[in-house]
Amino acid sequence: MNPNAFFNMSYGVYIASSINGDKINAHIVNAVMQTTSSPATFCLASNKNNLTCEYIQQSKVFAVSVVDNDADMKFIGRFGFRTGRDIDKFDGIKYRIGQTGAPIVLEHTVAFVECKVINQIDLGSHILFVGEVVDADNIAEGKPLTYADYHNVKKGLSPKNAPTYIEKPKA
Amino acid sequence: MNPNAFFNMSYGVYIASSINGDKINAHIVNAVMQTTSSPATFCLASNKNNLTCEYIQQSKVFAVSVVDNDADMKFIGRFGFRTGRDIDKFDGIKYRIGQTGAPIVLEHTVAFVECKVINQIDLGSHILFVGEVVDADNIAEGKPLTYADYHNVKKGLSPKNAPTYIEKPKA
Repeated sequence: MNPNAFFNMSYGVYIASSINGDKINAHIVNAVMQTTSSPATFCLASNKNNLTCEYIQQSKVFAVSVVDNDADMKFIGRFGFRTGRDIDKFDGIKYRIGQTGAPIVLEHTVAFVECKVINQIDLGSHILFVGEVVDADNIAEGKPLTYADYHNVKKGLSPKNAPTYIEKPKA
Repeated sequence: MNPNAFFNMSYGVYIASSINGDKINAHIVNAVMQTTSSPATFCLASNKNNLTCEYIQQSKVFAVSVVDNDADMKFIGRFGFRTGRDIDKFDGIKYRIGQTGAPIVLEHTVAFVECKVINQIDLGSHILFVGEVVDADNIAEGKPLTYADYHNVKKGLSPKNAPTYIEKPKA
């Protein structure tokens, strides 16, 4: 098996967020996709080490904010390479609370989808959440950031909690 | 809810294939993503109307061939807008049988991933299969076709069985 083959899969870059009581948190993720159209459902793979994953398990809701391709590494790093256990990731970030209670990012975001969890699979390192869409809308003009551009243009890395993490970087 | 927001999600274009006894079949799909890295797992949303979906349920294996961006609409249409109930989709197509028994496409394919189903969720119109990777490799140089380019450059449509199908096309 040659795991470099996995680099040929295409993804976007998203901020997956949730709520737990009066606390909110979010993490960067590529592993989001639509699973059905009627009713509209999406799935999200979230690493159990992520605080947001705990929040989703508690509240059974998540939002996905679609990151635009103008987002810089400082913005992405805030959500992707820090932990909500140490900092308030939303401090200084424009956001609003959605219908589910999960925060929707309003900076560097072209669209969002909010979901109520209807099913989940424990995959060991990650939980695969399936959510029915509660609300969704476009937020701003702009082009969605692709995971390929995140790697090739912005020279971003896959954090250790990403489903696509590989110990040895691509040659 | 504004389903046009869903057009801001990023995907690749894949040929999902499976086997059932001595029969093979495949369908075009965008809804594929990696869910964990160790062990490597992928998920695939397949419409129950697709013959390939029946084959996966029977054989519990699937392969995903990553379509390259040189693929024309004739090639894509063969796998995406025809049914294996009427034609042999692999007739005249270069392919090989993988370790799981599922066919791997060798034309217009940059890489493949073969999986054994370890879990699944019935989502009404679709089944979300989660598979552990049995084999994966790169096949040829080339750029993976993105779902955005399939729509914007090749002017491809979302077939009715796609998770991303919307009755009213994007304005």
